[in-house]
Amino acid sequence: MSEGIAHVTLDRPERKNPLTFESYAELRDWFRDLAYDDTVKVVIFGSNGGNFSSGGDVHDIIGPLTRMDMKQLLAFTRMTGDLVKAILNCGKPVIAAVDGICVGAGAIIAMASDMRLATPAAKTAFLFTRVGLAGCDMGACAILPRLIGQGRAAELLYSGRSMTAEEGERWGFYNRLVPSETLEADALSLAQQIAAGPNFAHMMTKTMLAQEWSMGLDQAIEAEAQAQAICMQTVDFIRAYEAFVAKQRPVFEGD
Amino acid sequence: MSEGIAHVTLDRPERKNPLTFESYAELRDWFRDLAYDDTVKVVIFGSNGGNFSSGGDVHDIIGPLTRMDMKQLLAFTRMTGDLVKAILNCGKPVIAAVDGICVGAGAIIAMASDMRLATPAAKTAFLFTRVGLAGCDMGACAILPRLIGQGRAAELLYSGRSMTAEEGERWGFYNRLVPSETLEADALSLAQQIAAGPNFAHMMTKTMLAQEWSMGLDQAIEAEAQAQAICMQTVDFIRAYEAFVAKQRPVFEGD
Amino acid sequence: MSEGIAHVTLDRPERKNPLTFESYAELRDWFRDLAYDDTVKVVIFGSNGGNFSSGGDVHDIIGPLTRMDMKQLLAFTRMTGDLVKAILNCGKPVIAAVDGICVGAGAIIAMASDMRLATPAAKTAFLFTRVGLAGCDMGACAILPRLIGQGRAAELLYSGRSMTAEEGERWGFYNRLVPSETLEADALSLAQQIAAGPNFAHMMTKTMLAQEWSMGLDQAIEAEAQAQAICMQTVDFIRAYEAFVAKQRPVFEGD
Repeated sequence: MSEGIAHVTLDRPERKNPLTFESYAELRDWFRDLAYDDTVKVVIFGSNGGNFSSGGDVHDIIGPLTRMDMKQLLAFTRMTGDLVKAILNCGKPVIAAVDGICVGAGAIIAMASDMRLATPAAKTAFLFTRVGLAGCDMGACAILPRLIGQGRAAELLYSGRSMTAEEGERWGFYNRLVPSETLEADALSLAQQIAAGPNFAHMMTKTMLAQEWSMGLDQAIEAEAQAQAICMQTVDFIRAYEAFVAKQRPVFEGD
Repeated sequence: MSEGIAHVTLDRPERKNPLTFESYAELRDWFRDLAYDDTVKVVIFGSNGGNFSSGGDVHDIIGPLTRMDMKQLLAFTRMTGDLVKAILNCGKPVIAAVDGICVGAGAIIAMASDMRLATPAAKTAFLFTRVGLAGCDMGACAILPRLIGQGRAAELLYSGRSMTAEEGERWGFYNRLVPSETLEADALSLAQQIAAGPNFAHMMTKTMLAQEWSMGLDQAIEAEAQAQAICMQTVDFIRAYEAFVAKQRPVFEGD
Repeated sequence: MSEGIAHVTLDRPERKNPLTFESYAELRDWFRDLAYDDTVKVVIFGSNGGNFSSGGDVHDIIGPLTRMDMKQLLAFTRMTGDLVKAILNCGKPVIAAVDGICVGAGAIIAMASDMRLATPAAKTAFLFTRVGLAGCDMGACAILPRLIGQGRAAELLYSGRSMTAEEGERWGFYNRLVPSETLEADALSLAQQIAAGPNFAHMMTKTMLAQEWSMGLDQAIEAEAQAQAICMQTVDFIRAYEAFVAKQRPVFEGD
């Protein structure tokens, strides 16, 4: 589609886009490879057929898990965690465009994205507790509290209940609510704006948002002094300055 | 009262339920022992006579503190801190049901709970500054910013002013406002929903919400991979799967 | 001006108060010295001529930066980071009073303050991306997410767009919106309330809000037990108790 924007969706809309063992691994590998792919500037993780994702399929995933030994179970939970790590470390801003059902591992993918748009029909649930599991899945106990606050995150993780679109916007999970009809166009428009660059600097912003997660304040400030000094050596920084002097809009090229 | 739900209140409603040296110690010991008590699934820390708690009593606590030496003072501040640690480490979700006055150490107990319901009459103040002390009491400078944001927390801690119920809900301190008449019933209903389990998994959610507080992102994701793999070895996980296949609601038993 | 309250503004209102190399250094040194100045209790960082600050000037700062080598660049980014560290470590609560334009390094100064008032005309933008740089400037990737949430911070840092005053209040960046006509008076009133003390305890609150940034929960609670025990040895603590017993308002003196 649009220049430099990758569009990812799960592809079983008739079942609300569940994840399977194969799709976890495929997504993990795709996001890992993305770190080395300069042609992609921004990723949209979209909905398909009116839904984002129904999460790990009960028959395809939960059933087999109930028969696994600990070594196999840990291999599975690490694979799903590795998908989140791959999203966080891919170096490109990821925008989730959430419509309809967005639950379980689907909610996690939305949570692990950098920004989130949603329609009023979005129903997001961290419903691990409903299948007998804990809320600590794929980083949820670390990331969700930083998006919506510790108290709201605790309630969603203990209860497994749906967060409405309106709650999600009010609490800071969604950046904006948009009509279902324009969700794709609005996500594309935001993606294009960010893909216009400066993309090396955006990669650094994404890196540091994750990198500073548990740093002390003084350490974070020193880390940013170094990271920004690196960005000041890019040609895009000079391009921006020259455009400003010429009273033009800068055209960034990513180097 | 209800199966598996412990209901705690302070017991001097005529004085708005102050804390004393004895009640700090008693609560600390009770929450500590709770970690080993499987009959309790969820705790409600309730209000009594229209108020939650007026905090450390000026005559019973502040007076004696002004006459203590450093060794005694540190023993006191550690005892109060140990109450918060005991709430965080008790392994059971704690729901605060806040009506009326909720100040000082009372506000801290509400803050240290996992979830909070309140009535429109709830007045919560971290008023340590009013008695000449700092806002850094019993973990407030660490926990309050993660509930309501760093800027709002700073204002409450520097000014000691009351947070209204409406502010508390809007900022994420309270999960929900309910009428005074139904506060107990609403807290009980939420408690029952969570007490229905899976309680081993809820214990793990509570553990990890605290455990991941200052982990890096990659470390948190690995920690959750291990924690969730443990939960996948519980019988409740199998019960949930079998109930799903049989199109029934799972009945969790906590193992 | 008012007893114990320092009022700082940038002084080129005709250019919306840009920062220069000299003003960065001067502010850094002033905030550093402040840690040892007991006559100042609270700082107001105000607006001037209807604007807070236009940030680093393009001609005075960006131009020279495009011609610097790495050693010089790092010296610059560390100088700006040192300003934030100096604000965080000055030991006095800092109140930003934001009107009009508040962008770039100006937005960072507001962000690094303890509390923020703003007028409906406040336009705050972390616009580093517009000049080809990353959002990780002077601590923004660490501090902004703790003020307004990780998702909202990410959008502002990737897009460089303005946050409206209404968004800023709703998201927790601003503590309160006030009319332009009363901004100075309202900031002064808040400053006076806090300057009334207890100022040693306020210094400890500020210290611990920064100190506990990346501590574990148990470590934060122990750190507060020690910090509060120190405050219990101050005369202001005794003054508060004696005033209470005498049914008077305490008069704090800062020792």
